[in-house]
Amino acid sequence: MTIDTGPLTSLQLQSEMTSGGTLELSLVEAPVPDPGDDELVVRIEAAPVNPTDIGLMFAAADLTTLTANGGKTVATVPPAVLPRFAGRLDRPLAVGSEGAGTVVRAGANAQALLGRRVAIFGPGTYAQYRVTRADACLVLPDGVTAAQGAAALINPLTALGMIETMRLDGHGALIHTAAASNLGQMLNRLCLAEGIPLINIVRSAAQAELLLGQGAVHICNSSDADFVAQLDAAVTATDVRLAFDAIGGEMPGRLLAAMEVAGVRRMADYSHYGSTEPKQVYVYGALDPGPIVTPRAMGMAWSISGWLLFQLVQRAGPDVFKRMRQRVADDLGTIFASSFDTTIGLADAIRPDVIHAYAQRATGRKFLLDPWR
Amino acid sequence: MTIDTGPLTSLQLQSEMTSGGTLELSLVEAPVPDPGDDELVVRIEAAPVNPTDIGLMFAAADLTTLTANGGKTVATVPPAVLPRFAGRLDRPLAVGSEGAGTVVRAGANAQALLGRRVAIFGPGTYAQYRVTRADACLVLPDGVTAAQGAAALINPLTALGMIETMRLDGHGALIHTAAASNLGQMLNRLCLAEGIPLINIVRSAAQAELLLGQGAVHICNSSDADFVAQLDAAVTATDVRLAFDAIGGEMPGRLLAAMEVAGVRRMADYSHYGSTEPKQVYVYGALDPGPIVTPRAMGMAWSISGWLLFQLVQRAGPDVFKRMRQRVADDLGTIFASSFDTTIGLADAIRPDVIHAYAQRATGRKFLLDPWR
Repeated sequence: MTIDTGPLTSLQLQSEMTSGGTLELSLVEAPVPDPGDDELVVRIEAAPVNPTDIGLMFAAADLTTLTANGGKTVATVPPAVLPRFAGRLDRPLAVGSEGAGTVVRAGANAQALLGRRVAIFGPGTYAQYRVTRADACLVLPDGVTAAQGAAALINPLTALGMIETMRLDGHGALIHTAAASNLGQMLNRLCLAEGIPLINIVRSAAQAELLLGQGAVHICNSSDADFVAQLDAAVTATDVRLAFDAIGGEMPGRLLAAMEVAGVRRMADYSHYGSTEPKQVYVYGALDPGPIVTPRAMGMAWSISGWLLFQLVQRAGPDVFKRMRQRVADDLGTIFASSFDTTIGLADAIRPDVIHAYAQRATGRKFLLDPWR
Repeated sequence: MTIDTGPLTSLQLQSEMTSGGTLELSLVEAPVPDPGDDELVVRIEAAPVNPTDIGLMFAAADLTTLTANGGKTVATVPPAVLPRFAGRLDRPLAVGSEGAGTVVRAGANAQALLGRRVAIFGPGTYAQYRVTRADACLVLPDGVTAAQGAAALINPLTALGMIETMRLDGHGALIHTAAASNLGQMLNRLCLAEGIPLINIVRSAAQAELLLGQGAVHICNSSDADFVAQLDAAVTATDVRLAFDAIGGEMPGRLLAAMEVAGVRRMADYSHYGSTEPKQVYVYGALDPGPIVTPRAMGMAWSISGWLLFQLVQRAGPDVFKRMRQRVADDLGTIFASSFDTTIGLADAIRPDVIHAYAQRATGRKFLLDPWR
């Protein structure tokens, strides 16, 4: 391939919340700096629209007020929530948590990567170019397309991170909610490959069908009238005491209550503190942005915690993280394959009608951004 | 002293929840078994009425329906909650989580304790005698009365257990709610003695006054209109990221939000995941028996967990537990002193009017049970 050696400029998507109570999305053109000795310039070819990106882009803005306004797209932010975002007010943020592209420039210590296709972390992958540390990217195997590599980091490493967390915490099975998501499907394939009992919680018969077709063993549909009974049967069958929840709201409490019921059933003697078996729910998402509401039906041996991939990486250490990344590269075409059904460009990404489509975060409707489209 | 060598019988208080939906308190007389080689028979002289005892005695019974009925005291249990108590239905439970008394019989390996005053764990201390393992009791220093030793275990070890937990978790300061309770006052004295920053959360000006008189440095009154500002100032001053909460309801979320606000203020760069500093709330009580309601204003580095003294003992190991018990014996007259203002007998303890008084769990109104009264 030909490597461009002239000055580069990059169009990039920014999100700014103003102290005046507006949320503004815009495309700005900026010169691309030269890479440092250990850095790369990556020409981004594909970036997924992940829930975390939507969260950063729109924060708590009222999407019913979205309008295109002289090159910017603007929405109103309710005044009451502004203090929560004090740290970002009037500071434009670069959007895009991951992506894939080709290394077009490389620092002195990273020349070997020139011309390779890599997956990189953001922020700032909703752009034509991004400078990144060479040791922070995943070199994609030959033949992997940009679309195939676009989501090679966050979802695959999150699925692997859940399994690492399970092992660090001393558990042997897990529950996952929002199980029909791209991440959920990956986790199901990973658990099947590893022989780890996984309870998949979905919210529709169609999602249950999808996972059943992918070999899922335990599926519970939270929209069914007998969800509690389904969950009880699955929890009892797997002896699970750990869950990863993308939802929040009442879900963590429902999961803890189900695990507690099964735990109490295993007890020889009554204790009014309930089961002594530790039960853990990690909340890694906020599909329900309201309060987490947890009735006291979980005994005393319980924990609900926030969870982020980067917390796990810090806890597990660099060797484990390296092993996780190698595993992604090894199984990118199979366990860690992502699928997208709509590709949009940078200008599309700030169009109100397109935003309304991708901001639904509907399972089965995944968007890919091509910054050169 | 004279040791009685004839057969002993013990009057004891029992609580039974029936599958028919009633809660029954009664006094039953039972023979006292001979002690095994490593066991003692303790003549109980005083036992405190702790919140945990009230919880075991009445569970979810409707106290407005309490009536004395032929030697028993009976209340209705709402049918909806019965399944939660499946493990105790139609099984009488011995009441009383701790107490103090004199060793009147001792097994072959425990003869040295004969005649000593000891503090013991329950269950079953709301009784005239109790058989217990010799190595599970705390031998009280000479001159300590039964009333002074009655609550020498649970509250003092809980206060010490909170400090041990703080250290195991790598924290250096803590928040405590229900801070004017006997336990809270102990914790305040302990933290002052150890130089540990403690934020005392109370719910009235009178309670604030009480703790102020005991040298408390940080006091926040949750009934004040500016509670959030008080809490913010105290959290910022102490850099605290750990709380022990006796309440539940909205309190854990309020504490996490306050710690998150202070954490975000310390950040150099904005992150839409919030502060990276881990924040922990341990919930060890249920003064608010409703759901724990936690708004999403706490970033992603948070954890809310159940906490029990016995979980800490298991986590810290027997050597630490031994050290904790020695510390209680050393400082029983000072840091770990309890106060009681009403003494009742076994028959009183099942009288509806007395129950209504002690079941309020009012701070500053502590009941002591004397089974011989």
